[in-house]
Amino acid sequence: MDSNRYSRGQQTLERIHGPIGAGVMDALKDIAPDFARFIIEFPYGDIYSRGVLSPKERQIATIASLTTLGSASPELKAHIQGALNVGCTRQEIVEVIIQMAVYAGFPAAVNAIFAAKDVFAELDKNEPPK
Amino acid sequence: MDSNRYSRGQQTLERIHGPIGAGVMDALKDIAPDFARFIIEFPYGDIYSRGVLSPKERQIATIASLTTLGSASPELKAHIQGALNVGCTRQEIVEVIIQMAVYAGFPAAVNAIFAAKDVFAELDKNEPPK
Amino acid sequence: MDSNRYSRGQQTLERIHGPIGAGVMDALKDIAPDFARFIIEFPYGDIYSRGVLSPKERQIATIASLTTLGSASPELKAHIQGALNVGCTRQEIVEVIIQMAVYAGFPAAVNAIFAAKDVFAELDKNEPPK
Amino acid sequence: MDSNRYSRGQQTLERIHGPIGAGVMDALKDIAPDFARFIIEFPYGDIYSRGVLSPKERQIATIASLTTLGSASPELKAHIQGALNVGCTRQEIVEVIIQMAVYAGFPAAVNAIFAAKDVFAELDKNEPPK
Amino acid sequence: MDSNRYSRGQQTLERIHGPIGAGVMDALKDIAPDFARFIIEFPYGDIYSRGVLSPKERQIATIASLTTLGSASPELKAHIQGALNVGCTRQEIVEVIIQMAVYAGFPAAVNAIFAAKDVFAELDKNEPPK
Amino acid sequence: MDSNRYSRGQQTLERIHGPIGAGVMDALKDIAPDFARFIIEFPYGDIYSRGVLSPKERQIATIASLTTLGSASPELKAHIQGALNVGCTRQEIVEVIIQMAVYAGFPAAVNAIFAAKDVFAELDKNEPPK
Repeated sequence: MDSNRYSRGQQTLERIHGPIGAGVMDALKDIAPDFARFIIEFPYGDIYSRGVLSPKERQIATIASLTTLGSASPELKAHIQGALNVGCTRQEIVEVIIQMAVYAGFPAAVNAIFAAKDVFAELDKNEPPK
Repeated sequence: MDSNRYSRGQQTLERIHGPIGAGVMDALKDIAPDFARFIIEFPYGDIYSRGVLSPKERQIATIASLTTLGSASPELKAHIQGALNVGCTRQEIVEVIIQMAVYAGFPAAVNAIFAAKDVFAELDKNEPPK
Repeated sequence: MDSNRYSRGQQTLERIHGPIGAGVMDALKDIAPDFARFIIEFPYGDIYSRGVLSPKERQIATIASLTTLGSASPELKAHIQGALNVGCTRQEIVEVIIQMAVYAGFPAAVNAIFAAKDVFAELDKNEPPK
Repeated sequence: MDSNRYSRGQQTLERIHGPIGAGVMDALKDIAPDFARFIIEFPYGDIYSRGVLSPKERQIATIASLTTLGSASPELKAHIQGALNVGCTRQEIVEVIIQMAVYAGFPAAVNAIFAAKDVFAELDKNEPPK
Repeated sequence: MDSNRYSRGQQTLERIHGPIGAGVMDALKDIAPDFARFIIEFPYGDIYSRGVLSPKERQIATIASLTTLGSASPELKAHIQGALNVGCTRQEIVEVIIQMAVYAGFPAAVNAIFAAKDVFAELDKNEPPK
Repeated sequence: MDSNRYSRGQQTLERIHGPIGAGVMDALKDIAPDFARFIIEFPYGDIYSRGVLSPKERQIATIASLTTLGSASPELKAHIQGALNVGCTRQEIVEVIIQMAVYAGFPAAVNAIFAAKDVFAELDKNEPPK
């Protein structure tokens, strides 16, 4: 195991997703432990740890992609939260999703808006906006 | 016809795609003139003319989405060129596409890289990099 | 705001979806009010208000598309109800979905049939068929 | 082999696609003869031979689905021609495709419009419109 | 009705899915009885009853396809159970899904792993592994 | 750089794709050298080098997935050739593709059959079957 990629990946995962990321990895570990390791090493250790794009730009790209896929609702919610964690505003996240109506169609965008609404409502429940 | 949305859309289309955008609109006009107008009015007049995201951030989102779709090669090439026009570097465009391997799979990312390679080669042919 | 497109869109939305359409728009309004407006203006004000195709033919096309997408279950149910509202029979809706097995595969068609079954069951609960 | 389904399928294939349908079946026969038979028997013998929807309504559904898929350009062109053969007008075909911008996104609709343009141009070359 | 294809399909459906397959067919029968018959006749009577590939190889292909689609969760679960029924191990099923991260992206693979986890947990609840 | 994963990946790439694999990597290297390395390391070094499934079973899964995607024709052809290289027969490859008509629809399967036909014809041109 490449401890370098793995530890770098864990730090990036933690920075983007907080403790929720570790929870998903734990849920994968009993059924597919190598896959949990691959996720930490490749997307987070190899890709998200690279420079060139800012963390915010990377989340914009990811939200665009997950909205376009249409069938990855848990990952979309995780990355909407991740986008907030790295400095995107709610308005920016909503704006990326609206733009996706042009490329992925209105249903994909509408469903992603409702996913964002769920994430924001959950946050407001725990810590009401002032 | 809403001349406001239309003229705003034409300017935005021109800023992103240059004369190539007008060429695609002309090619649509004899078969589906209303659809050509809708494209200028809605994606360009309504969406790309909004604030919140910078033109560069919007192209990042679009390239992510078109790479994810996998089946929109002409539009992907047009927006790779558009991303360069609004200030993305080649390296940033390549980086967005690489990240899509995580969400849309490696074939979608590989094919998008080759689309970018075509766009860059075409540019270098017309105006060789120093 | 183009009051013409907007009011035409509202009427078309109401004709196809009844009060449920307005409910979805309301749910969008607090998080993405401009997007709610775009949905009324573009799909309903610009597209569904055109002639050439009958309202029934438009719903056939939409149910075919949403069944093919596979990941837009709420919209599919809304348009199954919409198809009934503009004069499609239950049998015609089922028939469009069955045909989609050929193009989008059997899982997409089976899941859409079960979506239709849910919509029909909900209707029968409120107003049992004679 | 169910000669009933097969001969019914052949007639329906011929009615929708003319001699081009038989050509595609011939191209499949040397590599996958059973699959060629399945195509005649199931989509054409079982599905397109049913009532409930008119041939025109079935082509509307198919063009909507193939436009939505985005990656089935040869089949889309074959069914655009098929739609003309069963009585759709060019304007109706274009209208179905435009509506798909709402559900499958603008790139899918734009590419389908250009597919229709190719089919219509090919027809006009062979038999110029008066 | 081709009783040969139908009875062959019923046996194949029973061999792969056990009584659950019959349950799905029953749920389809009141709304779309012909479609229930088509499913038994074509996928099970025509396709899964063919030789060339072993039942295990066919399930590998199906799990790969349903993981790639991303939006067919009920069918994926049914075929994960079906793969176990025809002799795939849990480890082999997980391995096919992991490989799909390469082609369909990580979200599609992660969601399919969680679908497998649900199926395995349901089995262990009814009959705990020794 | 993890030389272990990289050299293991190169060997696996060579075993599956022969010299063509190296050619694709070379074509990627000038525009996206890190991505070329990631492809060798992750899909080939991490995934295809694992046990549990036989090389033949892995190609069956990959052909199923690429046929389902529908928009990855170059990769599909590369893996049809790869499947032959690891011991699949032409008939088995065709059979996997036919089965995909059930899950991904007939157009996806038909287009994949024609991709296989192209690969087989190219092989026969270079080395005619006896």
